[in-house]
Parts: sequence; C-alpha cells; structure tokens
Amino acid sequence: MDVSGPSEFALIERLRAALPKHAANGLVVGIGDDAAAWRSPAYTLATTDTMVAGVHFLPGRVSWRDAGWKALAANISDIAAMGGTPAFALVTLCLPPDTPVEAVDELYAGLIECAGVYGVTIAGGDIVTAPVFGITIALTGEAAVAADGSPLLLRREAARAGDAIAVTGPLGGSAGGLRALLDDAPLTPDIAWLIERHMRPRPRVDAGQAAIAAGVRCGIDISDGLVQDLGHVCAASGVDAELWLPSVPAPPELSACFPDDAINMATGGGEDYELLLVAPEAALAHASDLLGTPLTRIGRVLEGAGRVRALDAGGGEMQIELAGWDHLTQGRR
Amino acid sequence: MDVSGPSEFALIERLRAALPKHAANGLVVGIGDDAAAWRSPAYTLATTDTMVAGVHFLPGRVSWRDAGWKALAANISDIAAMGGTPAFALVTLCLPPDTPVEAVDELYAGLIECAGVYGVTIAGGDIVTAPVFGITIALTGEAAVAADGSPLLLRREAARAGDAIAVTGPLGGSAGGLRALLDDAPLTPDIAWLIERHMRPRPRVDAGQAAIAAGVRCGIDISDGLVQDLGHVCAASGVDAELWLPSVPAPPELSACFPDDAINMATGGGEDYELLLVAPEAALAHASDLLGTPLTRIGRVLEGAGRVRALDAGGGEMQIELAGWDHLTQGRR
Repeated sequence: MDVSGPSEFALIERLRAALPKHAANGLVVGIGDDAAAWRSPAYTLATTDTMVAGVHFLPGRVSWRDAGWKALAANISDIAAMGGTPAFALVTLCLPPDTPVEAVDELYAGLIECAGVYGVTIAGGDIVTAPVFGITIALTGEAAVAADGSPLLLRREAARAGDAIAVTGPLGGSAGGLRALLDDAPLTPDIAWLIERHMRPRPRVDAGQAAIAAGVRCGIDISDGLVQDLGHVCAASGVDAELWLPSVPAPPELSACFPDDAINMATGGGEDYELLLVAPEAALAHASDLLGTPLTRIGRVLEGAGRVRALDAGGGEMQIELAGWDHLTQGRR
Repeated sequence: MDVSGPSEFALIERLRAALPKHAANGLVVGIGDDAAAWRSPAYTLATTDTMVAGVHFLPGRVSWRDAGWKALAANISDIAAMGGTPAFALVTLCLPPDTPVEAVDELYAGLIECAGVYGVTIAGGDIVTAPVFGITIALTGEAAVAADGSPLLLRREAARAGDAIAVTGPLGGSAGGLRALLDDAPLTPDIAWLIERHMRPRPRVDAGQAAIAAGVRCGIDISDGLVQDLGHVCAASGVDAELWLPSVPAPPELSACFPDDAINMATGGGEDYELLLVAPEAALAHASDLLGTPLTRIGRVLEGAGRVRALDAGGGEMQIELAGWDHLTQGRR
C-alpha cells in the first residue's frame, strides 16, 4: 500500500497511534488540533533541519528507520550546541504519492526511537504531497537558567583571545561512513562502525549541559565540518583560531580504513555531531570532570578577524581542503 | 543570479539583512547561531505548515511575494484557531539550484510583510537544495492564560450538544480566486477581490482572541473546507452537527462570478482562514460584541457520533460535495 491509499487524516491517525501514549514535558495538546500546546520553560530554544531524499541521504542505501533517527538527531544536536535540553518536535513529511506506507512507518519508528533516547515529545506536524521525499523537523528545547533568571547559552560569538579550543569526541567517522556507503565497501567491523557513525549520530546533549554547568559559554556542533564550524565561531566572535592538526582526533577505525584521507575527513567532513567548545582552559577541564570523559584540546583562540589557521606538527601553516557541507553550492550528497 | 551562486551562508546573511533590526517578543538569539532562543510565555502554541510549488501554489500565476505572505498566514491561522497570539517563526526553504535569488528576496518580502502585520518575529530556519521549491514554516504562539494560571484554548474536542455554530466571515472566496486563476478569468473588480482572498488571506487572530475572552472554548480555522473542518470538530467532540446551508455566508463577489458553484465553494473550498466557533449562543454573542463585528450563525450541535448533516431551506438533508483539501488523495493543486 502506498500513501495515496489512506487519506492525509488517516495517515496522521496511523502515525499518532504509533507514538508513546503518556504525555511528557508539560504537553497540553498534542497531534490532532490546530496547534500543539505545552507549558513553557523560562527560555525556549528552537531549531529546524531538513533532509531531502537524494540530497541529504541516499534512499536504498540508508534504511528509512535510520533516516528517521538522523533527521531528529541533527535537530537535537543544535539544541545540544546551545547547552540546552531538547523537548518538543513538529515533524513535516513531504511524500510522493507512491511512497509505501511501510516506509513512513519505519521512518517514524526511527524518529520515535531517537525521541525516546533523548526525551523528545513529538507534538505535531504536517503531511503533504510532493514530487520528492523530504522531512523537516522543528525542535524546541529548554535553555539552562542562571540563579538570577537569565539564560545560559553556548554562543558562537563568545570566543575570546586566549581561550582554549576542544572537541568532545572523534571526528571524520561520519564522512568515512558515507564514503564506505558510496563505495559499497565490504562490511568489516571498522566499516560497520563508520557507517553506524554516519547513520545513527549521537548528539552530545550531555556534553553541552556539562559545558554550561562548568561555565563554558561558547560552542557549536560539528555538522558542517570542523574547519568550517570553527570558522563560524571565529567570524561570529571576531577572533582568529589556531587549529593543531596533529591533535584533531580521527577515530582509529577511520585511520585504518582510509589512511590517506582520515585527516581531511576529520577536519572537513560534516555530521559528526560532536561539540566544539571554546573557553578558558580551567572551564574546559571542569566540563570534562563533570562529563566524566576527557575533552580533546585542538587549538587556541587569538586576536584576529575570523581566520582559521591550521598548523602541522612543526607549527607550519597548512592549506586545508575546506569541504564541509554547503548544500547550495556543492550538493555533495 | 540563481541561488547556486552565493553559498548557503551568504544567502542566509542576505535574508537576515532583510529582517527588521529590532528584536521583539523577548527574542534572545535570532538567526545565526545553532538555535534561536527567546523568553517563553507561560504556555507555548506551535504549528507547522508547508507549501510545495506545483502542489500548493502555482508558480507563474502566484507572485513569490504573495506565496511568502500565504505561507506564513496559513501558520498564523492555526495559532488564531487556538485563540492564541503568534510569536516566532522558523522558515525552511527548499530551493532548486536554478531558483533566482530575486525570487527568494520577493518571497522573503512577502513573509516579512505578513510578519509585520501580525507581530511575528522570524527567528531562524534552514536552507537546503531540493529538486522542487518548498517552504515549511514552524510558528509558535502564546496561549491565553486564566486567572488561575491554566491555559485558555479553542479546542476541536470542546463542542457540546446544544451549542451554536458560527463563522467569522464569508467563505468560498479563496476557492473562487483559485478557480479564476486556473481559468485565466478576466480581471474584473469581483475577480480581483476573489484572487486577493486566495493569495493574501487574513488570518483571524482578532476573532480567536475575542472568542477566548468571551468564554468560547471550541474552534477551528477553515483551511480544509467548512464541511470537512466542521467534521473534524464533530469527530473530536463526539457530536453531530446540523449545518444550515442557506445561512452559510458566500461573499457577493463569489455569487456574482460563480453563481452555480458558490454554495459548493463556500461549503467545500479550503483556505478561507476564517474561524468556525462553537459555543452556547450567549458566548458567541459576547464574542461578537468584543470583536465589534457580527458572527454568522450557520448551525447547531446535536448529540451524535461525528456526523455533519447539511440542511436546505426546507430542512431537508442535502448531499454535500465533500471536496476539501486532502493533499495525499486528491492533490487538487
């Protein structure tokens, strides 16, 4: 059965029936009215992210369930990057009429799985016909609040000369997984790990919250690629950054499978969804203590005007392939 | 210049520069960070609505500016239908690479115009490449709050036997405007009025707020079509409705241009974005007083199980062409 069988209303009812029954997060009105309603936190965070079939993921190579997980995970990562806690999602599906209903069920299963892990309530959405499959999620979150009632956020504009730069985990795994998918690489354990990293990213809500609690006030998630995302921080803060290439943590699985490209994937590949944190060294050390895992120091902030300088082991400046994900000009996926 | 010229980041910067400079509605972080942030009202309303080119509007027959207005207006209407006040919008654009930058500028101009009229702050969004143009807006709003702190909402499930049914304005104008566009009808003043009604709908935030203040607790916006939307209320409330066809207010411009179809357009045409209100007669009269304009009484609620009975002047039941807009099964536009 494809989605042109049931009416829009029947399909919405089917998806609603798949959702957990208990209301959470202060939900007052969920799916089925003109708008959702919930009791608000003091400060709301809000983000939105879209995946279009053939542009952002490869139908046939990626399961619908994984696509559902990833669509929500990408949004959760934006909330993590502000140091917040994800809360309510609105899910818009653009469906070609020949989309199998089972594909929508599977997509929703992945969404619901991710929502369960991260405490997100799916509160509403929209379903429309379109020539190509797409999913857009709008996600709200709750910002941390200081004792005086002001919001505590990880901002891109808060980097200061003298700050240390760290990342919360290994980079490039997602790019390696994508390469493996495109190359139809044999499914060794290392390749499977990389593909999992690409398909089932784990946004670092824990790390964002620990950073806020430790006094860190500058951060971004690594979704476009390390150099590009660090560049966003430098541009927003009006500073330069020194990036120590030998310190950038590529996962061993990546170095084993793609030894020649691992460093480029780690610095230029997107969608690892680790956090880049920028703060005085003591605050980063405190965040690491709270988190219970080490952060990896990869550089420092200098006076400047938005430039990222990548340094090799000898301290010489290297040209970095600034790949990243700019959908409009490159459409790499 | 098409959108494959500037990078995604440059295009976002261009659109951000077009937005009003003053922060409003308690905005703390707008476009340019990982997520937007704002000071929350006690209860948040949230909705999302999508328009896809060729499915929901006709590029070439509808200006980009009008498309931008309507995309936001459709969302505002959902907030109005809950009795709330619209607040923050996240705007996602799916752009084919050959989209002219000027089209995006115009679309944004229409969005900004509508946002200005209704006090909406555009706080963020996403821009992606896609094979077909689409715009998805997620909109939040503020719910009215009772003295005891509980939220005051217009719910679909709150209709009770004995309630009166009323609408806030004329219906079918939008369907007439669409027909005129499809027929390339000569642009008489009546036709121009209908097309304006189709392209520049005016969501009834005022009427929703007046209804709440008057004690009305059941409402829906007429976006799918009167009979279908009244059917949603009946299904959610577990009641039947008697709809008095001769009382349904078709605008005189519609009756003049499409005399044979006016009643079908008024009962089945979507996107008029008037409100359907259901409440004891006294509450509706009070809402009308507060609003300063009459509401039109079109029927009453009976015990039942979700059925809408349309009655002609003699009280006989008529079969209604249940057109409405169900994108998945009909794809009428």
